[in-house]
Amino acid sequence: MKCVKIETAQPYDVLIGRGILPTLGEEVKKRVARCKAAIVTDSNVAPLYEKKIEESLRAAGFETVSFVFPAGESSKCLQTLGQLLEFLAEEGVTRQDIIVALGGGVVGDLAGFGAAIYQRGIPFVQVPTTFLAAVDSSVGGKTAIDLAAGKNMAGAFYQPKLVLCDVDTLQTLDADTFADGTAEVLKYGVIGNRELFDLVATGHFQDQLEDVIETCVKMKRDIVLEDERDTGARQVLNLGHTLGHAIEKKSGYTISHGHAVAAGLALIGRIAEQQGIAKEALFAPICQGLKANGLPCATQYSAKELAEGACFDKKRKGNEILFVFPERIGTCILKKVPLDAVENMVRPALEKDGTA
Amino acid sequence: MKCVKIETAQPYDVLIGRGILPTLGEEVKKRVARCKAAIVTDSNVAPLYEKKIEESLRAAGFETVSFVFPAGESSKCLQTLGQLLEFLAEEGVTRQDIIVALGGGVVGDLAGFGAAIYQRGIPFVQVPTTFLAAVDSSVGGKTAIDLAAGKNMAGAFYQPKLVLCDVDTLQTLDADTFADGTAEVLKYGVIGNRELFDLVATGHFQDQLEDVIETCVKMKRDIVLEDERDTGARQVLNLGHTLGHAIEKKSGYTISHGHAVAAGLALIGRIAEQQGIAKEALFAPICQGLKANGLPCATQYSAKELAEGACFDKKRKGNEILFVFPERIGTCILKKVPLDAVENMVRPALEKDGTA
Repeated sequence: MKCVKIETAQPYDVLIGRGILPTLGEEVKKRVARCKAAIVTDSNVAPLYEKKIEESLRAAGFETVSFVFPAGESSKCLQTLGQLLEFLAEEGVTRQDIIVALGGGVVGDLAGFGAAIYQRGIPFVQVPTTFLAAVDSSVGGKTAIDLAAGKNMAGAFYQPKLVLCDVDTLQTLDADTFADGTAEVLKYGVIGNRELFDLVATGHFQDQLEDVIETCVKMKRDIVLEDERDTGARQVLNLGHTLGHAIEKKSGYTISHGHAVAAGLALIGRIAEQQGIAKEALFAPICQGLKANGLPCATQYSAKELAEGACFDKKRKGNEILFVFPERIGTCILKKVPLDAVENMVRPALEKDGTA
Repeated sequence: MKCVKIETAQPYDVLIGRGILPTLGEEVKKRVARCKAAIVTDSNVAPLYEKKIEESLRAAGFETVSFVFPAGESSKCLQTLGQLLEFLAEEGVTRQDIIVALGGGVVGDLAGFGAAIYQRGIPFVQVPTTFLAAVDSSVGGKTAIDLAAGKNMAGAFYQPKLVLCDVDTLQTLDADTFADGTAEVLKYGVIGNRELFDLVATGHFQDQLEDVIETCVKMKRDIVLEDERDTGARQVLNLGHTLGHAIEKKSGYTISHGHAVAAGLALIGRIAEQQGIAKEALFAPICQGLKANGLPCATQYSAKELAEGACFDKKRKGNEILFVFPERIGTCILKKVPLDAVENMVRPALEKDGTA
């Protein structure tokens, strides 16, 4: 089992290993006094692992209650949050109790945000069961819900007490859901690790999954610790995300986060080439890496549609929006783009290769 | 004009004075770059002051938009919060913009919580227009909404950039709403300032309102700074509140916070005498002070009802609840009471003098 230490104001460990789900109760017990554990999970994950972690927590002396909500991004809303909060209150959960988030990004975001605001904050433990959640949402303390106006528009910065990632759980994922995580890993590669990119771009890295997750978690940790509140250095993590979010939103979230980020990554690679920012070929290797992992390199949306979506992004500052551009596979720069220049910047990238 | 400096991690000023509402724009401008100001207020306050602060903000170069919700505790809910968040998104409010909370405790709590979570946090300015908000909710960073299960059950610790309290606005309050603030001021007196208690207990202190507010703000500041996350010293501020919250809740919030706290304060004074904690007469002077200000010293609810309400309090820790007991007018102690002992502790206080 690997243990990555995250030195936020309240430090915590990310445990990564195979078959470690049954150790959850004991690992939590080392960090939290005996109490009630409210397991929060969705309708996909509950049948697979809910009983297993319930047993593990009970064996370690925790009382458990469970809140299961319908799987899917559409549950990451104020209404489900309200149901979760009322559930916690009805179950008499107090500030001395904990929330255990069991599932992917939606579960982590919703349960983490619930933990951040219920009684103004109670401890929570994260058990990511998707590749994407393991490499992305388990570090950084970002929790959120979506509004009608956009994704992750309300939320909190809130750190877990522990993250436990059983790599075996990732093997129950369908290919598309697994690929959502791969898109994010390729992003880490383009941001700052050519070796990681080269490995994952082959499409054959499943036997090195623990190492890949550890590398991504450490990389995100190092970037996030520089900038806990997401005001500077951390913004490189948004590579591919400004256009990716626009694609996701435009599709009514029928296109998944990872698949949208994949297309966003390819597009921003092409834009970096067209804008003279790229110092080497980017679009071709990025597309090759995405395709080898069953991910898209293009979008059916127009430059106008993407620009509109991007201008609603949280990264907007007044009349400008901060974009992350790759220079090489492994280095990126931040650059502000005026809102009214986004459409013209995106259009040529679509015309060349970026349309579906 | 008085200026009390609050040295939280992000320090801010509480400005107290007469007729200072028109200076709001200039005071904000000293602290926040020109941006969009989203004024959040309720249907009672909007007709009185909304135009005035809009003009002041615009004259100082801020763009303004306004969100007005129906006055009353019942608006401090997830639904209104959702409407506020969607409003902010529709108006294109970004992290560089500000929220201006104009009103009493409900406005401050709802707008402050909205500011804490919209895009994971945007700056906010508080303009309290009730006596209670001026002495209580303008310091301490507590923001919240109510759940069906209880008051302030979800929220965040979040500090404003500035608090501006125009004492003239308190003069438009009806007697009952003004008295809500007085109950809280008497509480400050019992916690730690006999001189303040003696002044306010006369019922004649309106010509010293600026001084009274300044004294309370400084007192709360000193207590809160010791304990920003409300885990220790700060809990003395809950004097009278555990039973007060139970009364409020039992009444379906038809009894106001201040009136409920008044009864809670009288009850806990009587309980302190009966439990041998009091080192001087408490019930008589507290009741006299409350009555001189048109406040109740009793409740119609039973010991069983109050104990049930108290056991849902956030101050509950496992099977115990932390009560604040006065020893004298000016000193208090904290003491844990087992949940199953609360009813028997409360009953004799009601039997003696505490029933309506």
